[in-house]
Amino acid sequence: MASFKPYRVSSNGKFKLSKIDPGDIPFAQGSEDQQREQLTELAIELDKLQNRLHAEGRRKVLLVLQGMDTSGKDGTIRWVFSRTSPLGVRVIPFKVPSELERAHDFLWRCHAVVPGSGQLMIWNRSHYEDVLVPVVEELIDKKETQRRYRQINDFERLLVETGTTVIKCMLHISSEEQRTRLQERIDTPGKQWKFSRGDLAVRLKWDAYQTAYEKALAATSTEHAPWHVIPANSKTHRNLMIAQLLVRSLKDMKLQLPPADPALEGLVVT
Amino acid sequence: MASFKPYRVSSNGKFKLSKIDPGDIPFAQGSEDQQREQLTELAIELDKLQNRLHAEGRRKVLLVLQGMDTSGKDGTIRWVFSRTSPLGVRVIPFKVPSELERAHDFLWRCHAVVPGSGQLMIWNRSHYEDVLVPVVEELIDKKETQRRYRQINDFERLLVETGTTVIKCMLHISSEEQRTRLQERIDTPGKQWKFSRGDLAVRLKWDAYQTAYEKALAATSTEHAPWHVIPANSKTHRNLMIAQLLVRSLKDMKLQLPPADPALEGLVVT
Repeated sequence: MASFKPYRVSSNGKFKLSKIDPGDIPFAQGSEDQQREQLTELAIELDKLQNRLHAEGRRKVLLVLQGMDTSGKDGTIRWVFSRTSPLGVRVIPFKVPSELERAHDFLWRCHAVVPGSGQLMIWNRSHYEDVLVPVVEELIDKKETQRRYRQINDFERLLVETGTTVIKCMLHISSEEQRTRLQERIDTPGKQWKFSRGDLAVRLKWDAYQTAYEKALAATSTEHAPWHVIPANSKTHRNLMIAQLLVRSLKDMKLQLPPADPALEGLVVT
Repeated sequence: MASFKPYRVSSNGKFKLSKIDPGDIPFAQGSEDQQREQLTELAIELDKLQNRLHAEGRRKVLLVLQGMDTSGKDGTIRWVFSRTSPLGVRVIPFKVPSELERAHDFLWRCHAVVPGSGQLMIWNRSHYEDVLVPVVEELIDKKETQRRYRQINDFERLLVETGTTVIKCMLHISSEEQRTRLQERIDTPGKQWKFSRGDLAVRLKWDAYQTAYEKALAATSTEHAPWHVIPANSKTHRNLMIAQLLVRSLKDMKLQLPPADPALEGLVVT
């Protein structure tokens, strides 16, 4: 297996997003058939691990997916979790904050949907929107941005200290790849429902967003909750890399079924 | 395909649960291999239909699963939704009400988790616990029970009138089958975590629960939200019948992708 290390954002605050090629495919090896088979195997393994997480009923897993429009957040959820029972997996899509949400601090709506014991929660976008959009739109100044980075780190530390494994993935595509994907959505009747004109306005600020991502990732990749940048021009690579990262992270948790209860030995149901 | 009609509870208030054999297997035809294959096909079809529900983004689906302990609610979710993306499916497990929940009317916690536009929600137990447990435990009188039946019907009518397809399944097993399954949980170390001593106390009230189910189903099987009784001694039959009922119900909705937007024709992304 390839190494995650080159794609893990250092916690020393230094990080250059441009040094990672969105076209990299280190985790997609072998023929197309082999890759498809491998993804199915990983999805089945993930289901088994998630089932054990549920049975153990003690710890929690939070997967944070961030990325520009069309970077493949929905697709990742569809393919990586294609064999996982919805019993213990839940997706939270973060949209533009509602009036009620805006009336609270930016972590309020997030805290309400952190995973509970035995749960695996997937955040489709996240609290990071609040250090990306307002930075690009210049709605908050540098001091406030720094303060939010710290608030995010504190919040995530709380989650980790209370039994949550936090896995953060930034789906990294090139501007050219986004252009192709947006064009495909526009031109394909069956995909048009995924397109919004607002996506084009955001696309015009591509460079500002890349900078905002770079700074946010550098400031919030901690030992307890590191960021991984996922080269995502290849959808297969994106799926395989995230599936492998998840399987490895869940294996590292050494999840155990609750031990047998000696008191139940010999109990007969009538 | 077999007919659902004999298993659909009439809305005329007359219904005898004992007339339905939990060992029936009308929806499980052919060899074991064929049945396994058929379930996979149905699960994949369900994923496609759910994806269209999500894309349409307008209507909602609520699947209510009720049944005695070990009747297979978790197993149904695991196998029927084995190929469905968690993007648009969510499971709500209803446990013993918390103090906060008990401080509100019994539909309060339910209303909070009804499906939103484009969502398929699975209720693992439901508001029906509140016309089963308190009836068996004699915590509410006949008048209050009747009032709750009506409140349930009114609540479900609201959901149906606002775009929700409500599918209610009672997983029907025999007392002997439950005995076998509870014993298996006790005797199998890997399954013990699913067993609770409280299950034995509830089992002692088997007959009272069957009567409470019969009355509740008779009173709340309406034209807008009918009950289906699922013979569930055979797990394969249970899965196949529920998968077919779901696929049929979602097909009946005639879900459509949003139409192509003529204004997007010729739009070029730069």
